[in-house]
Amino acid sequence: MSAQSEPRGERELIAAIARRLGRRPPPDGLVRGPGDDAAVTRAGKFAVTSIDTVVEGVHLSLATHSPADAGHKALGAALSDLAAMGAWCGEAYVSLAVPPALGPARALELVEGMADLADRTGATIAGGDVVSASELVVTVTVVGWADSAEALAYRDGARAGDLVGVTGQLGGSAAGLLLLQGLEATLPRATRDALLERHRRPEPRLALGRALATTGASAMIDVSDGIATDARHLADASGVAVAVELDTLPLDDGVAEVAEAADRDPAQLAVTGGEDYELLFTAPPECRSDLERAAGGSRLTWIGRVTSGGGLVLRSGDGRSLDLSGFEHL
Amino acid sequence: MSAQSEPRGERELIAAIARRLGRRPPPDGLVRGPGDDAAVTRAGKFAVTSIDTVVEGVHLSLATHSPADAGHKALGAALSDLAAMGAWCGEAYVSLAVPPALGPARALELVEGMADLADRTGATIAGGDVVSASELVVTVTVVGWADSAEALAYRDGARAGDLVGVTGQLGGSAAGLLLLQGLEATLPRATRDALLERHRRPEPRLALGRALATTGASAMIDVSDGIATDARHLADASGVAVAVELDTLPLDDGVAEVAEAADRDPAQLAVTGGEDYELLFTAPPECRSDLERAAGGSRLTWIGRVTSGGGLVLRSGDGRSLDLSGFEHL
Repeated sequence: MSAQSEPRGERELIAAIARRLGRRPPPDGLVRGPGDDAAVTRAGKFAVTSIDTVVEGVHLSLATHSPADAGHKALGAALSDLAAMGAWCGEAYVSLAVPPALGPARALELVEGMADLADRTGATIAGGDVVSASELVVTVTVVGWADSAEALAYRDGARAGDLVGVTGQLGGSAAGLLLLQGLEATLPRATRDALLERHRRPEPRLALGRALATTGASAMIDVSDGIATDARHLADASGVAVAVELDTLPLDDGVAEVAEAADRDPAQLAVTGGEDYELLFTAPPECRSDLERAAGGSRLTWIGRVTSGGGLVLRSGDGRSLDLSGFEHL
Repeated sequence: MSAQSEPRGERELIAAIARRLGRRPPPDGLVRGPGDDAAVTRAGKFAVTSIDTVVEGVHLSLATHSPADAGHKALGAALSDLAAMGAWCGEAYVSLAVPPALGPARALELVEGMADLADRTGATIAGGDVVSASELVVTVTVVGWADSAEALAYRDGARAGDLVGVTGQLGGSAAGLLLLQGLEATLPRATRDALLERHRRPEPRLALGRALATTGASAMIDVSDGIATDARHLADASGVAVAVELDTLPLDDGVAEVAEAADRDPAQLAVTGGEDYELLFTAPPECRSDLERAAGGSRLTWIGRVTSGGGLVLRSGDGRSLDLSGFEHL
């Protein structure tokens, strides 16, 4: 942790954070953790690095997220970028800009939420910085590793004829947020809780991302903004068109009920809601069964095709069109 | 650059940033720069990584720093941590939390200041994130590289009998800040300008850090908080005492005049002012001439000794004591 310009409260918070992080024995690759000018780690052949920032009031709200949820979400969103590359999970470096009103106990809870996810995914929180600010800003840099640059999946590898697949289920995060915002919907308690958890604690698909990248996925991206945006990013980067069949989208349990209560098309939650942190990928048709095998028990759904041309086409069997004009992040 | 939750203004800013960063041909080691889920770089054997955050109003002020100064300072402070380890400079990952009032033109100026320093030091800005916030928060993660973990300098290697040295000159940043805050002092224009520059645009001592680490420095830390704090960190980490002779401290030109105008002891500016981003190091006496040779034309000053015991002792030949009680960062 940096010692730069830290008043007493920050020093104590840093010490408490160091105690929490010190609970886990340091992994073999960590030569120096927090406490020096920089961390030192044994490197793989290729470093895969992403930086992600969440701002309270913009990307999450402490009215709907506990501090531990916020910590989980900030690290989870960053690790999802490593998943989308198919990298091995390595280290995380965390900057906390903490408003005085948050208080050290809740700041520490935030770190706990992050450290629990790190422990579970095998990430090492190897360094950080704590500063004062007027609002909560959490920045996480994650560093993953790969043995070869070709073993990774990029956004630009999709080719005409490829299938389009997605992991897991969609729309759950957007539905969970609508419930958190007070929407009334008739749902079994367990379904409701699962949707809330989906929004508060997204799960980075690290093992699945590695499996897909090494088993023939030609392109991959994580679904952070919703596939309306993310599939378009992939199409644009690859110079192809992506066509998605709306009727095939795997919806989380309860999304249909929440959409009905909100007077929305369920597909809209899946397509524009975002924050599901599933993986959207493309692959040549001949890799299909290998990919399904590589996914093990995890769900893969084939939702479309790559064609020549450009842009994103969202199609429905009943010919209904999905209103995407002016769609906002829910 | 991440695409997460970005309104139009952020997308345009990200595109402008990408154009600025694209002006320089990508270095050999960069497999993927901004634009995918993560950057991919060819790694060295050991990764040396630090994350640093500066908040407008806490660590710098746009009343006294141009946006380009702020960008330079945020990257410079982070790179200084790599210098203090003796690492090769590698990549930087930048998160900008930008208040609407800053505006895209000034946000881009900030990136320009950062990119100019990156170009000059050989750092590659390989990724980033841009988000909206109510205040300016800039977080920089820097990744440097080393061929062996033993070639690096840590804070905990100082041994009783070692000499204590410092690069460059001290107190200039604190003096520059006092001038920026309106202090009147009689100074030649060039001296005044140099002090302002010293505060606004700290220079990371990357080459010097590598030279010292590989030529016998037993411990090293960068002077971000002032040696009263930083020498104590080094002493505590090494389990030794550090004694510094105040009369030997190399002061920047003009520090004496500014201190007099501010009715302060010049040594106080050097010792507690901070933000000089020089390197404080220790070394066995037999390495002294090797280190001086390795520094080339750069100034090294021997300012004290490591002894057994603990803590920091600040000594003056005339027996005067320096009031450090309740010292604050200037």
